[in-house]
Amino acid sequence: MHVHVNAATSADGKLSSRRREQVRISGVDDFARVDEIRAASDAVLVGVGTVLADDPHLTLDDSSLVSARESRGEEPHPARVVADSRARTPTDARILDDVATTYVLVSEDAPEDRCTALEDAGAVVVVAGEGRVSFPEAFGVLESRGVERVMVEGGGEVIFSLFDDALVDELTLYVGSMIIGGRDAPTLADGDGFVEDFPRLSLQSVERVDDGVLLWYRF
Amino acid sequence: MHVHVNAATSADGKLSSRRREQVRISGVDDFARVDEIRAASDAVLVGVGTVLADDPHLTLDDSSLVSARESRGEEPHPARVVADSRARTPTDARILDDVATTYVLVSEDAPEDRCTALEDAGAVVVVAGEGRVSFPEAFGVLESRGVERVMVEGGGEVIFSLFDDALVDELTLYVGSMIIGGRDAPTLADGDGFVEDFPRLSLQSVERVDDGVLLWYRF
Ligand SMILES: NC(=O)c1ccc[n+]([C@@H]2O[C@H](COP(=O)([O-])OP(=O)(O)OC[C@H]3O[C@@H](n4cnc5c(N)ncnc54)[C@H](OP(=O)(O)O)[C@@H]3O)[C@@H](O)[C@H]2O)c1
Ligand SMILES: NC(=O)c1ccc[n+]([C@@H]2O[C@H](COP(=O)([O-])OP(=O)(O)OC[C@H]3O[C@@H](n4cnc5c(N)ncnc54)[C@H](OP(=O)(O)O)[C@@H]3O)[C@@H](O)[C@H]2O)c1
Repeated sequence: MHVHVNAATSADGKLSSRRREQVRISGVDDFARVDEIRAASDAVLVGVGTVLADDPHLTLDDSSLVSARESRGEEPHPARVVADSRARTPTDARILDDVATTYVLVSEDAPEDRCTALEDAGAVVVVAGEGRVSFPEAFGVLESRGVERVMVEGGGEVIFSLFDDALVDELTLYVGSMIIGGRDAPTLADGDGFVEDFPRLSLQSVERVDDGVLLWYRF
Repeated sequence: MHVHVNAATSADGKLSSRRREQVRISGVDDFARVDEIRAASDAVLVGVGTVLADDPHLTLDDSSLVSARESRGEEPHPARVVADSRARTPTDARILDDVATTYVLVSEDAPEDRCTALEDAGAVVVVAGEGRVSFPEAFGVLESRGVERVMVEGGGEVIFSLFDDALVDELTLYVGSMIIGGRDAPTLADGDGFVEDFPRLSLQSVERVDDGVLLWYRF
């Protein structure tokens, strides 16, 4: 699985404020770029924290990107994937509409009635891992269904786990020219954090976009 | 007072790991740059959190920068300043040696015996603010003693307060190509954080330094 993490942070590394409300960090040029990465992906992944905080749709905005996918014989939109160990995704979440396929990755501990409710709402439920979703295992299942390129759009808990599992191939990071602050605000990589052997990335390019900067890293 | 904040973070905005041990984020070129900003400053400020975690010396490494200051009729090293409301700086801290003047900013609530102990250890104690050090008030006192340019080297609590007080003029941020992670690791700007009216910076330049990138912002 090719894993591309994309996110926008403030200069101090925050994905949003301590209130976990969506903060507009980048601008129109960056939004267009994000849409293009989505269009080139088989699936877009977020954690259930992001679903509960932002209720994102995760489909393509630009209709010409949709047409291009269709003319390549692909689904109009990439699939949507939620990492949601306990199947807490609300059945009226926007990602569960029928515009694209939606996979909900759950753990073996997810309540069965919640899994059934999600399936009734149109989701494909994938069980992988005990306690918490195991990404290596879940990605194996997604690959068997033709998902070869996944774009990860957050949040900080899921992104940390993917680095911890050494699954990340690319990171594009838009650093906005603002300060959010807050010791409890979500950052690009939360989780328990590393204390040694910090993952080292290789900076591929640096580009000014909107009023901030876009950093592209590979591993 | 001209306030220049300088720091090095991982790509995910962390100043160090959750263990709060010093992490080598940048390289030799960045260290040399930091030394030059120090040399051009009248004082270098840190919070007591950084003193307790790292026990920094905060003097100039490069002897040619020392000579240049001396030939301009300045003190060999910039003064050192610690924001330390309750006068917790250990009397054997490296910043209390006699290589440069050291100001300890305390609040009115600092225990008198601790203040006396710090003065005996060679510090100039400045009382400013109730409960916590008031930077606007403390900077007034420092200015009256000839400190016109202060460089702030961290940590995240002090940097957030300076943004909150709208005292920051410049930010130079080295973003290292590594991930530290950790929801409890210190970030560039901690404190309570902003929830609206986020301070907006103006990106002046972007430069590749060592294996990371140096961002320079003004307000
Ligand atoms: N600026 C941006 O680019 C951007 C993008 C996305 C999100 N955000 C912001 O980020 C915030 C949400 O981030 P977040 O970190 O709280 O949530 P998140 O990473 O979206 O979701 C975290 C949740 O995912 C579930 N999960 C399942 N398997 C996991 C695994 N193996 N590792 C880690 N988590 C796993 C966990 O809940 P269970 O244990 O219940 O499964 C965990 O609590 C919101 O404020 C949102 O606005 C910003
Ligand atoms: N990578 C880098 O460039 C870099 C640079 C510096 C530090 N660091 C790291 O940062 C960490 C320390 O950061 P930190 O955020 O914990 O500590 P900090 O900002 O250095 O110090 C925080 C302390 O300063 C005192 N303070 C006094 N007046 C204040 C005010 N008005 N506003 C805020 N604080 C005030 C407070 O203690 P009182 O209430 O007792 O006064 C506060 O707890 C360490 O892990 C260190 O290694 C990294």
